[in-house]
Amino acid sequence: MGPHAGLDLVEKILTLTPATKDQDHLPVALLSYPERIPDRSTFLMDPSQPSPVPVLTAVARQLDDLGATVAGIPCNTAHAPAIFDAVREQLRASGHQIRLLHMIDEAVRHVQRTHADLRRIGTMATLAVHRLKLYREAIARAGFEPVVPDERVQVEVINPTIFDPQWGLKVQSTPPTERARQSLLEAIDHLRDNGAEAIFLGCTELPLAVPESHLDGIRLIDPTRVLARALIRETYPDRLSAPASDQAA
Amino acid sequence: MGPHAGLDLVEKILTLTPATKDQDHLPVALLSYPERIPDRSTFLMDPSQPSPVPVLTAVARQLDDLGATVAGIPCNTAHAPAIFDAVREQLRASGHQIRLLHMIDEAVRHVQRTHADLRRIGTMATLAVHRLKLYREAIARAGFEPVVPDERVQVEVINPTIFDPQWGLKVQSTPPTERARQSLLEAIDHLRDNGAEAIFLGCTELPLAVPESHLDGIRLIDPTRVLARALIRETYPDRLSAPASDQAA
Repeated sequence: MGPHAGLDLVEKILTLTPATKDQDHLPVALLSYPERIPDRSTFLMDPSQPSPVPVLTAVARQLDDLGATVAGIPCNTAHAPAIFDAVREQLRASGHQIRLLHMIDEAVRHVQRTHADLRRIGTMATLAVHRLKLYREAIARAGFEPVVPDERVQVEVINPTIFDPQWGLKVQSTPPTERARQSLLEAIDHLRDNGAEAIFLGCTELPLAVPESHLDGIRLIDPTRVLARALIRETYPDRLSAPASDQAA
Repeated sequence: MGPHAGLDLVEKILTLTPATKDQDHLPVALLSYPERIPDRSTFLMDPSQPSPVPVLTAVARQLDDLGATVAGIPCNTAHAPAIFDAVREQLRASGHQIRLLHMIDEAVRHVQRTHADLRRIGTMATLAVHRLKLYREAIARAGFEPVVPDERVQVEVINPTIFDPQWGLKVQSTPPTERARQSLLEAIDHLRDNGAEAIFLGCTELPLAVPESHLDGIRLIDPTRVLARALIRETYPDRLSAPASDQAA
């Protein structure tokens, strides 16, 4: 839900839709109101802080009013039940029909479907997603073995990679700063050393900075790309390009 | 108004807004309905063809309903009076307050302000923009001397570069096909041979394929970037990054 992540989601919808002219592309509405949406992690770590739920619900209602039938939230952290389930519940309560796809569930189901041979899958995500075990539990439910970073790597490497106000991905992601790129590689090495055969890039800033589907011999799974594919599947399934066999998403 | 051009416009708004966290970014709504909007060039060349005016007006009204006060249309061809003026008139007639900025006028004013030393300025655009002299007349009104491609280069080089269903920019722009890139360079050489000191990339697909601000010693002006800057200036002027002195836009 960094604004670049929203653009990345729409870009991936375009890429997954074969087209030879403008009119071949699907209708997409992107409502990007970053200044109005309180930080998801801050709220999850301290529920006395401002909640992103009211604004997210209002934005989903606006999308519904525009005629959207299905929507995605390009922020993994927003899929914590305290946010995502609350938004869904408020939409239901007000009678809005728009369906929110669940990015993390979609990503894990995608790997079940396309890479059932994997056994141990790691995650890189925000500290909030790490503490709440969002990917970890979804991976385990799907029958894989989750590989999580040590607390030190989570706190001292991964989190600053995303949020550091000098060199983090929220400041600059395409391309990332040299320091962010080095931190990412350190985290990937760490997860591989802990046995991961693949890694979920479980914060939407990460695939902006690491577009590779493989790095240092490890498979990287891009939940933004999975969400883009799911949004097309749920609206215009016949317009979806065939999955490339060499891509995890 | 190719959907990639819409993303490019939003990306440029983000780039022009200094930020260290998500909440520093401006609220943006992108409504991208390419399949519903008839081809602008086709309509301009033959007004018996479907008009894009009704859908463009409806989209502008939706943006107004969302709370947008200012909007841009990331398509130079849509700025022909038969389209742009008609949309503005319909919005006025229905009492909608949203203001549409005029991309071509903004681009030419920008060059007047920042590069008053230029004398001869060329344009690459669609055949419709070429025939209707949209850039040519705006350039002349601003006191510069317009440089236009010969009819053969316009028809056989520039137009296929944008529209060819096999290798044109509407099919693939980031990066463009090798053939499209070669065609672009041929057109730039041609305009320089005809005396252009700078060139407007007057179709929003062009800056996707030619991100350079200079190429082969000639200055390239990106109207999408000018439009992004104008949208910020008209809404949150204090959030606009300082213009880089080495960039035309």
